[in-house]
Amino acid sequence: MPHLVIYYTANLEPKLDMTALCRHMADAMLAVRDENGKQVFPTGGTRVLAYPAPHFAVADGGATGQAAGGSGDYSFVYMNLRIGKGRTATTHQIAGQALSAAARAQFARLLGSEHMGLTVQIDEGHEVFDAKHSTLHPLFNKAA
Amino acid sequence: MPHLVIYYTANLEPKLDMTALCRHMADAMLAVRDENGKQVFPTGGTRVLAYPAPHFAVADGGATGQAAGGSGDYSFVYMNLRIGKGRTATTHQIAGQALSAAARAQFARLLGSEHMGLTVQIDEGHEVFDAKHSTLHPLFNKAA
Amino acid sequence: MPHLVIYYTANLEPKLDMTALCRHMADAMLAVRDENGKQVFPTGGTRVLAYPAPHFAVADGGATGQAAGGSGDYSFVYMNLRIGKGRTATTHQIAGQALSAAARAQFARLLGSEHMGLTVQIDEGHEVFDAKHSTLHPLFNKAA
Repeated sequence: MPHLVIYYTANLEPKLDMTALCRHMADAMLAVRDENGKQVFPTGGTRVLAYPAPHFAVADGGATGQAAGGSGDYSFVYMNLRIGKGRTATTHQIAGQALSAAARAQFARLLGSEHMGLTVQIDEGHEVFDAKHSTLHPLFNKAA
Repeated sequence: MPHLVIYYTANLEPKLDMTALCRHMADAMLAVRDENGKQVFPTGGTRVLAYPAPHFAVADGGATGQAAGGSGDYSFVYMNLRIGKGRTATTHQIAGQALSAAARAQFARLLGSEHMGLTVQIDEGHEVFDAKHSTLHPLFNKAA
Repeated sequence: MPHLVIYYTANLEPKLDMTALCRHMADAMLAVRDENGKQVFPTGGTRVLAYPAPHFAVADGGATGQAAGGSGDYSFVYMNLRIGKGRTATTHQIAGQALSAAARAQFARLLGSEHMGLTVQIDEGHEVFDAKHSTLHPLFNKAA
């Protein structure tokens, strides 16, 4: 935790550098501070994974977009951040606004030229079992 | 919202046209009407994404299927529709039955020839943060 | 149900045989017995799907790992098991410990050589609609 998983239509693949976008989103996550100024997401636990969907269908498939003078090649990006339980509603809003602003900035050009949807959501996990093994956390905790 | 994500074993990839299937499922979603006759899923918010899993394991791996005269090449399709909060239980059932019927129709041939599982579920999202940016919705709302 | 979905950074792809790992995890699921000695996950309903993420970002991107003498090529594996409602908390723990032990064993070598995270979680589904069609279950139920 936290895991940001980005699902998106593969027609966006040639239109942006998604690996760079993952890094931007991870940096945005690392920069989030809660209402007390404390880093919300531990560095070693911050992960972003992005998955282009090779098959997809969006809205009416393109007719209305073409009629409006567009390509009809609709696209969609869904960012889902799953976080651990126990953070405050204020922290959720701070984190969400930060991620949403980062995502909007990254997609500013495409939101201006494409018919596309961009959704950012945060889920608080309600897992009934949780086990973590990490050789990453010690890298960042030992200096603390 | 709503997002239909289809996870499936990649051994199905050569056996069906998954892009066409995404379109069929999107059309099924667009056709859903609630108990008052109102379209349930907004056109601009209807998205279907399908992901073949390049690595997978199903059931016992094939032995029982082969013993039963099949190929032992089991397959699996999981359709997960995530919708926004606040719709009625009746609407959930109407939408679920429509999607399930559409999925069953699309897989009728394969369900008859393969050892496979097909699961359709609807999750009502309980996100703690939600932000949407869309240049798709205006296409479909401006005529309303 | 149950569905184990494995999300992982694609830099792990050349470092392990993920198809074999899926099989190991499925076998671990099939071996789980509840507090009464009963098989927890039905054979025909046991599915494991693994998805390498072609784009990703982890932690600080590598600087601290390199400073510690590593490659800086961080990796991450997230295993999410979704199960049906109604099992006991004890069964959840039994199943979780079994899957976590199986995953740890499979990644023992990589956990020793890589800076990586491995998370295993179980979610109890709270779907509002559920439909299953299967030509797999009958294979395993008819002998019972």
